Parts: sequence; structure tokens; C-alpha cells
Amino acid sequence: MPASYSTNMRFKFPILAIALEAVIIILYGFFITYDDGANSRLIHNNTGQIEQFYKIYPSFQDIHVMIFVGFGFLMTFLKNYGFSSVGFNLLIAAFGLQWGILMQGWLHHLKDGKIKVDIFSLINADFSTATALISFGAVLGKTSPIQLLIMTLLEITIFACNEHLVTTVLKVCMLEFEETKLKSFKSSLRDSLGKEGFNSAIAENPDGQYRAIINTYFSLAACVLTAYALSSLVDKKGKLDMVHIQNATLAGGVAAGTSADMMIHPYGSLLIGFTAGIISTVGFKYLTPILASKLKIHDTCGVHNLHGMPGILGGLAGIIASAMASEKVYGPGLIQTFPTGRSGIVQAGYQAAGLGASLGVALIGGTITGFILCISFWGQPPDQNCFDDDIYWELPDGETENENLLSAEHGRQNINAEA
Amino acid sequence: MPASYSTNMRFKFPILAIALEAVIIILYGFFITYDDGANSRLIHNNTGQIEQFYKIYPSFQDIHVMIFVGFGFLMTFLKNYGFSSVGFNLLIAAFGLQWGILMQGWLHHLKDGKIKVDIFSLINADFSTATALISFGAVLGKTSPIQLLIMTLLEITIFACNEHLVTTVLKVCMLEFEETKLKSFKSSLRDSLGKEGFNSAIAENPDGQYRAIINTYFSLAACVLTAYALSSLVDKKGKLDMVHIQNATLAGGVAAGTSADMMIHPYGSLLIGFTAGIISTVGFKYLTPILASKLKIHDTCGVHNLHGMPGILGGLAGIIASAMASEKVYGPGLIQTFPTGRSGIVQAGYQAAGLGASLGVALIGGTITGFILCISFWGQPPDQNCFDDDIYWELPDGETENENLLSAEHGRQNINAEA
Amino acid sequence: MPASYSTNMRFKFPILAIALEAVIIILYGFFITYDDGANSRLIHNNTGQIEQFYKIYPSFQDIHVMIFVGFGFLMTFLKNYGFSSVGFNLLIAAFGLQWGILMQGWLHHLKDGKIKVDIFSLINADFSTATALISFGAVLGKTSPIQLLIMTLLEITIFACNEHLVTTVLKVCMLEFEETKLKSFKSSLRDSLGKEGFNSAIAENPDGQYRAIINTYFSLAACVLTAYALSSLVDKKGKLDMVHIQNATLAGGVAAGTSADMMIHPYGSLLIGFTAGIISTVGFKYLTPILASKLKIHDTCGVHNLHGMPGILGGLAGIIASAMASEKVYGPGLIQTFPTGRSGIVQAGYQAAGLGASLGVALIGGTITGFILCISFWGQPPDQNCFDDDIYWELPDGETENENLLSAEHGRQNINAEA
Repeated sequence: MPASYSTNMRFKFPILAIALEAVIIILYGFFITYDDGANSRLIHNNTGQIEQFYKIYPSFQDIHVMIFVGFGFLMTFLKNYGFSSVGFNLLIAAFGLQWGILMQGWLHHLKDGKIKVDIFSLINADFSTATALISFGAVLGKTSPIQLLIMTLLEITIFACNEHLVTTVLKVCMLEFEETKLKSFKSSLRDSLGKEGFNSAIAENPDGQYRAIINTYFSLAACVLTAYALSSLVDKKGKLDMVHIQNATLAGGVAAGTSADMMIHPYGSLLIGFTAGIISTVGFKYLTPILASKLKIHDTCGVHNLHGMPGILGGLAGIIASAMASEKVYGPGLIQTFPTGRSGIVQAGYQAAGLGASLGVALIGGTITGFILCISFWGQPPDQNCFDDDIYWELPDGETENENLLSAEHGRQNINAEA
Repeated sequence: MPASYSTNMRFKFPILAIALEAVIIILYGFFITYDDGANSRLIHNNTGQIEQFYKIYPSFQDIHVMIFVGFGFLMTFLKNYGFSSVGFNLLIAAFGLQWGILMQGWLHHLKDGKIKVDIFSLINADFSTATALISFGAVLGKTSPIQLLIMTLLEITIFACNEHLVTTVLKVCMLEFEETKLKSFKSSLRDSLGKEGFNSAIAENPDGQYRAIINTYFSLAACVLTAYALSSLVDKKGKLDMVHIQNATLAGGVAAGTSADMMIHPYGSLLIGFTAGIISTVGFKYLTPILASKLKIHDTCGVHNLHGMPGILGGLAGIIASAMASEKVYGPGLIQTFPTGRSGIVQAGYQAAGLGASLGVALIGGTITGFILCISFWGQPPDQNCFDDDIYWELPDGETENENLLSAEHGRQNINAEA
Repeated sequence: MPASYSTNMRFKFPILAIALEAVIIILYGFFITYDDGANSRLIHNNTGQIEQFYKIYPSFQDIHVMIFVGFGFLMTFLKNYGFSSVGFNLLIAAFGLQWGILMQGWLHHLKDGKIKVDIFSLINADFSTATALISFGAVLGKTSPIQLLIMTLLEITIFACNEHLVTTVLKVCMLEFEETKLKSFKSSLRDSLGKEGFNSAIAENPDGQYRAIINTYFSLAACVLTAYALSSLVDKKGKLDMVHIQNATLAGGVAAGTSADMMIHPYGSLLIGFTAGIISTVGFKYLTPILASKLKIHDTCGVHNLHGMPGILGGLAGIIASAMASEKVYGPGLIQTFPTGRSGIVQAGYQAAGLGASLGVALIGGTITGFILCISFWGQPPDQNCFDDDIYWELPDGETENENLLSAEHGRQNINAEA
């Protein structure tokens, strides 16, 4: 084994992690302060903000559970990699949100040299962390914690720049259509990015948010039922595959993302979910093996089927829905849903530009990140040790070979005895 | 093995699932539209609805988690049936809520040929889905996904009709006392059925909802403690049984259901929970084995102990609490809790009629559903293969010992081959 | 095996549990009534309370999930003790909250011989139950359900008295700094103790609550990242230990507790979390083994590292933050955060007195409780059978004999080696 493959994290990893935390503490000391609503000196002019805070708090909790726990459990399907799936998810989340607040703050919220953090800063940091967690799914089992910290650092930086380009420069209406964004959860939070905050969002587009929840709900339900059908259909014995099902529970939300707050009607949402269920399941069954064998592109969690293709589907749905937007369909709410005031067809063009720009940034950013992560100094596992908790974790006693053998043997006897 | 026992789902199941989804999309196209609060054209006259929406959103999320995930995990106690428990739960939920919205809409909310969906439609659809999920518990391990789709279709239809009969025709005050309803979660949502919606509920009976939460909380706590005592008492070595405990955590809520918003006083709630804990545990220990051996009635999850008898107990408690209702106890809130304006004793009679009607509908509906499901074309598993994930699911390598070794070996070879 | 070691719970445990439930029902009949907001007779003068209720409901649910489920799962790391970890957690919670409502009511809320229960009573009862659950972590695997009921009874009684002393007599500003309190969750609920209720809290110190959430969030994030670094650093191969990580996710919240609503600034929160991550991880690695081997103090879950030392750290941070409080930093919000009107330095003295008093009560109360629990009549497991579900639970078939034997043997060797 060449020296470059030493997976011993002692010193390398602690030094990087502590250095990052130290830099963050210093930067927070210089840049971060409480938002007015949480500032004791300003208690008489912030009651509105506090009201908004109580409204958003339940969503905030839901998103947190998803980021800190949910993503990790979605990745526990690998034998002998449960500790890493859940544990590295948490590591990425803990670092990512601290870094995300700085990046998002510098690009969107810097005033007089200070970034005021409120509950929306925390939520937006969660979303930017989601980009890193989704990428984690693609490289699951093949990366060291050092690589994951570096990947998180780079991705959150790139994501913040792309977000700035698409929402502030191009003024694209979207929840988020980049592959790397947690669209389904975003639905209730549209407009909180690139604007003054969620309170204005509530004031300006309340029906859009309501619609977003209904549309996402229908898209998810249709996607799940369709994925069950397709999963059975593509198997030669008609059996279901849990991986298809698990991912369909998200693909429907991803595909609904961009157009969720538009007037696409409940049957439109069902159609989007129906299509996403087909695309995602067919992708898992046929595309992933081809990518791995022909193009040597590995994608442990099938992120391309779950976030990639459904995300593009969502972008296309957004373009179509924008093109069809008119005063007749939206009534006085048109300007709330499309605050740029552009005509439907012009907005559709901008949506397409946003989709293209995001894809471009994703390709370039992904390539650069990939090259940096390939440096062998980061302690990644050698190929023959991939997908194994034992490299980076102290495992509890009792995860032993013999016991496994015994219990499996015994289990089979039980089944035979019962039958 | 007779041909009728072919459990191969390919074509049969996908065709049924896709056909159902296609029919639903078409019906949604004709019947379903956004509620005013989510309609862009009506944004100026719906601020009240949107306020209500934000109030109800946390409950909505809790109920969802319960329906889509919680029920499934309650059923994972069977060895080798975890995939089916969780996976079929999700299948039933995804189809059930789409169908429930149509059925509930046709019976309760059809106006000018359109059903307007709002957050309460989604919640009510969840509740009607719960009926199918509870029945799923009774037939767990013995049914094919085709049977489950048919069962869901029939049960939700029957449930919607019975609900119409009991709440709209008989005007029975209840959360829900049918065996087949998710009572504990319903407590915070009383009045949202058969009325204009939850906003009116909030306006009309806020103290009742508050009371419902307090009463349910006490009933559950007493039920759990009692179930611990009984579980130890009925075992000859004094050991506890996790099945008793798990179910007691719900039986107390089921039993509190009907009377939860009435003035039954905290000690009354404790008494209901106390009784439910005894009934449920004794039922599991003594009644279920008798039903299975003498009457050949199988009930995999002991639904009769958890929802059946505690549900009837709840119905009886509702009759008693209604009979004792008076101006003296309720003060000016009497009309809010009992909006029919009937005297306590008359209302008690109607409650009894509602209980009887629900039991009758349950018996007749259950018998018909049972006969339809017995048709052997649906691909149910033969007796000797019940309770086995392997029939309907592609299991990941590693569910068995030899397979384990093989797959680990195989996995490594793959990795090597890939590298 | 001496007769005193009979672990058969039949009769002993059911009689105690039913007797406790019966006494509680009688006491509730005499003392407990609905709060005005849930009282049908008072529906015209309680709309404010009901509004508050809807605001607090999501937090109420989160806390409940933590108390009834979360704690239990944190303790499932022991092989062959999962049933007991989750099951006894639920037993303690079910009894503890019923008893906690009485104890807290008698000490804080008795009016005209009645205790009015509202949603804050339920939340406070949850918190007092948390004290018993934390202690459960320290004695995990070595106690019978009878001992746990007695421990819960004593701890909740002692806790309520200490709380009365510290918050009402000393008027210490704190969330809670006792080892035995669930600080991280408390942050959103400051002021609900020792005052008229949460509504006044919202009215009086809204920015403090907002700040508490932001500060807790940052402290947790920094604590997790630091714990990863330290966990790797203290292992000779640089591997991570899941126990360190799991506990860091709470230690950061515990340490932020006392000062969470003060103007400690985001970088201050990060610093607290950073320190907590170091203390907690180093404690697990070096202190727990020393306590066990030299002082014969066993602490199954390492409660001392998670709640003990971080709790004291939090108390110290509260003293420092109080001493630095001034009109200049807090502006007009000073009186809301420190409602006693004391100067910063005087308040700091009281904070120190509160910390000292709590430590004193904890030592004395803990010693008394320990002596009572040592009576051998309670059916505790003999040393050689500790950490085994089989003593108190009927295990499902399939928890096979051989496996149990093997792993029990293995576990036993570990325990013996430790002893």
C-alpha cells in the first residue's frame, strides 16, 4: 500500500477541523451580529419580526431534522457503512451551516460590514448545506472526512455564487432547480432568498406558498405510486426494489420544485410526479449501471436519478408553466408570483437561461472540486477498503464475523422450522 | 402449488397501479381545483384562510409523518417483513390520500361540480387513509400489493360514506369512534369534518380543542403505566411484553377519542386511559389467541385490542359524557361542544346510534371487502410463504448468511473490477 | 443466588404501578382542573390564552417526542438492552409526567386548593421528567423497573423543590443549569417557569427567546465540529468514536443553557460550544474510566460528561454573561432579560449562589436516592445479569439463544474487565 493511502486521520483531520472552527469564530466575531428581532437594544421596533419568527419556527425544525438526521438515514443502505453515513452527514451539516451563514451573508446580506443573522439565515444555511449532503450521497463510501470538509467548503461557496447569479442577476422565478438543492422543503419558503426576508414573502405571495404545499403533496403522492408500478414492471420477477421507492419519495418533490408555486393545477402536479416516478426508477434500473460500466462515473446513491434528472424535469416544467402564465390564469396574483413584471414568454426565456447557467456552474464547479479532492494527501480509503466503517470509526465490540455467521444461520433455521 | 397462487406481480400490479393513477389524474382534471386561499386570482379576499393555514401547518406535518412513516414502523415487529411493513404502508398512503380527496370531496365539498382542495382536504384524506392502514395491520403478512390497493379503494369509499352518515345525518358529536380512525391525532382537529373548515372550528370551539389535547395526554399517560402493570401481571414470570406496551401508547388515545373535547375532567381522562390499558393488554394476552384458535380469525397486529375494543370503550365514554353534559358543567360553552342544541340525554341517544351504525357499517363493509379480497387472482402469498419480504421485494444482498459472504465477496470484486 | 436477588417482577411491580396510578387518579380528582383556556365555562375571556396555545404547540410536540422517544433511543447503544432502554424510558415518562404535574402544581400553581393545568403544566412536567430520564442514563442496565419508579418519584420531588429555591427564592436568571434539566429544549421556553405563564414571557422577553434559539444553534454546531476533531485526536489510530459524537450533539445545548437568552453574541455561543465539545469528549475518553476504576462510580451513559460538566460550564458562562450585562449592551431590553433589576455584578453573585445551591441539592438528593435504591428488595439484577433485556422482558423468538449467549458472554467479559 503506497504511503499516499494512509487513512490515519490523527492530526491531519483534527488540525483541519479545529483550524476551520477557529477561523469561523474569528470571522463571526468580525462579521456576524444578531438581527434586530433578536437584539435586546431594539426591542421596541421589532414585534413584526418576532411574529414571523413564530410562524416559521415549525418549518425551521422540520428542515433541521432533515438536514441533520434525515439525509444520513437515507444513506444507511450500505452494509458496514451506517456509522459513516449518519456520522459524516452530521459532520458536514455542523460545518456547512456555520460556513453557509458566512457565504450567504457576504453575498446577500452585508450591511455596514455586518451580517445580521435571523431565523432565515439559519434556514438558508441549511439549504446550502443540503447541496454538500447531496454530493456526499454520490461519493458515499469513497471519501475521507478531510475530503468531505473540503468538498463542503467548496460546494457551499460555489452554490452561494450560483444562487446570486440566478436569483439576483437573472431574476429567475424558482424555488431552486439546481441539482444541488433541497427543493421539496423549499416549497414553503419561496421568496425568502434574494429578498428582504420571509415576512415580505408572506406579505407578497401568501397564496403561492399555500399552492406550493398542495402541489408538492400531489406530486409526491403520484411519484410514489408510479414508482411502485415501474419498480415491479422493470424487474423480471415483478418484485419491488426499496431503492426505487425510497428515492421516489424525494424525486416527486424535486421535480415539483421550480413550478410549485405557479398555477399548474392539481392534475398538473400529479403529471409532474407521474413523470418523475418513471424517470427516476428507469434511471436507477438502466442508466446508473451504464454510467458506471461505460463512463466510469460512480454514483453511490444514484443522486443523478434522484436530484439530477428530476431537477432538470422540474426546470423544464418551470419553463412551460412560466410561458403559460397570464393575467387570465393568475388574476391580480400574477405580479406576486412573477415579481419581475416580465411577460410569460420572456420569463420562460429567463427560466431557461437560469437552468442553463446552473448546469454550467454545476459542471465547472463539480470538475474543479473533483480535481481538488483527487489529491491523495486527504486520506481517502484505498479501493479495496471502500464502504467500510472500520477505516474511520472505532466500532463497538460485537460487530464480529462469527456472530454474524451464527445468527444468520440460526435465522434461516427458524424460517425453515416455521414453514 | 396451484396456478392461482402465482405471486408474480409483474404486469398485474403495474397495470393496476398505473391505471389507478391515470384515472385519478383524469378525475382531478375534471373535479379538483385550488381552494380560494391558494388561488392566485382570489388573493385579495383570502387572508383569513392563509392565517389558518399557518396555524394548522405543524399538525399537518405531524399527521403526515404518522401516516407515511409511523404506521409502517409500528408494524416492523415481524422478522423478515420489514420491507413490506414500511413499503406497503407507503404504497397505501400514496394511493389512499389521492383517492380520499376525491371521495371526501364528492360527499362533503362538491360545489358547482368542483372540489376545492385546501390543507383540510389533505388532512382529511390522511385520516381516511388511516382506516386502510389500520386494516393493513390486521392482514399484515398475508396480502399482495394488489389486494392492498383494492382494500384501500374499498375502505376509503366505505369510510367516507359512514362518516357522512354519522356526522352529517346523525350529527353525532365525536372526534371519530369508528375502529378505523386515527383518533389520537384527530383531537386537535375536531370540527374540521362536516363543517366549513377548521377556521370555523377555531372560532367556534377553541376551548374544546385545548381540552382535547390535555385529556388525550392524560389518557395516554395512564394507559401506558397501567399496561406496564398488567403486562407484568399476566406473565407467569412477571416479564414485560413490548407488544403490550407499544399498543398501549395508542390505545389510550383511541379510547379518549370520542369524549376528548368534553368536560370529562383530568381524572376522568386518567380513568379512561386506565381502563384502556387493562382492556388492551388483557385482549392481547387472552383474546387474540382464542380468536385465532377457536374462530380462525387472524389479526396479525392485534388491531382488535388496539383499535377495536378501546374504540368501543371510547364510544361508551362519549355516550356517558354526553348524557352528563349540562349548562351547569359547560356554561356558555355548551353550544360549542354540542352544536346540535340537543339535551344531554338526547345527544347520548344519538351517540349510541352513531356507535351502533358505525359498528354495523364496519361489519357489513368488512365482510364485503373480505370476500372480494379472497378472490385468488390477486396474487396473495400461499400460507407457507406468509410473512416473508422475499415474495414481493428484491432483497439487498446480505439478508442471509451465505448471501452475505457472497455479496461481500462480490462487492469487493466489483470494487476491484471497477478500480 | 440469594433470595434478595429475585428479579421476578410479578405482583411487586404491578402492585406498585397500579397503586401509584390509583393514588394519582384520586389526587387529580381533588387537585387538578382545566386551566381557564380549556374550561368550557370561561370561553369568553380566554382568547389570548388560546392564541398562545397555538404558538407553543409545535414546541410542545418536539419536546414530547424527545421525552417519550428521543431519550430512549440515545440509550440503545447497549447490545441486548434495546427493549429496556426504550421501554423503561417510556415507563419513566408516563409516570413522571403525571407526578410532575402534581409536584410542580403544589409548589408553584396552587390557588384555592386547585391546580389549573394548561399546556405549560404539561411542558414543565416533561422537563421535570427529563431529570429522571437523565439519571436513568447513569444507572442504565443495573436497575429494575421498581427502582426506576421510585427513583422517578424521588427525583421529580427533589427537582421541584430545587427549582422553587433557585428560581423563586434566589430569582436566578437561567433557563436551567442543574445537571438534571433538559436545557437545549428549554431555550425556546424561558420564563415559563416561576411566572404567570408563557404568554407573559412572550410579551416580556420576545427578543430573548429569539436569541436563545440562535445561540443554541451556534453552540451546537461548534460543539459537534470540535467533538469530531477531539474524538479523532484522542484515539491512537485517529478513529472517530460515535459515543463522543452522539453526546456532543447535546453537550453544546446543555452548555448554552443558562446564558442562551443573554447578549453573548454569536461568536460567544461558538466559543461555549467549542469548549463544551472539548470537555465532553475528553471526559468520555479519560475521566469516565478513572471514575469507574478508582472511585467505583459507574455511569453507563457518561451522563457526567454530557450533562454534568457541560452543565457547570453553562452555569459559569451564565455568571460571566450576567456580570458583563449593562444598559449599554442590552439597551431598553435589560429589564426583560434580567427582570430582578439587580446590577450585573450582583446578579452574577446570585447566579453563582444558584449554581452552588443546585450542586448541593444534587449531591444531597442524589445520596439519599442512592441509599433508598440500594435496598435489595426492589428486584435489581445481580451483577452477572446486568445489561440484559431478558431479565425483565419477554423477548420475541429469534433473539436467539446462541447469539445471546455469545454476546452476553462477550458483554460480561467487558463488564468484568471494567469492574
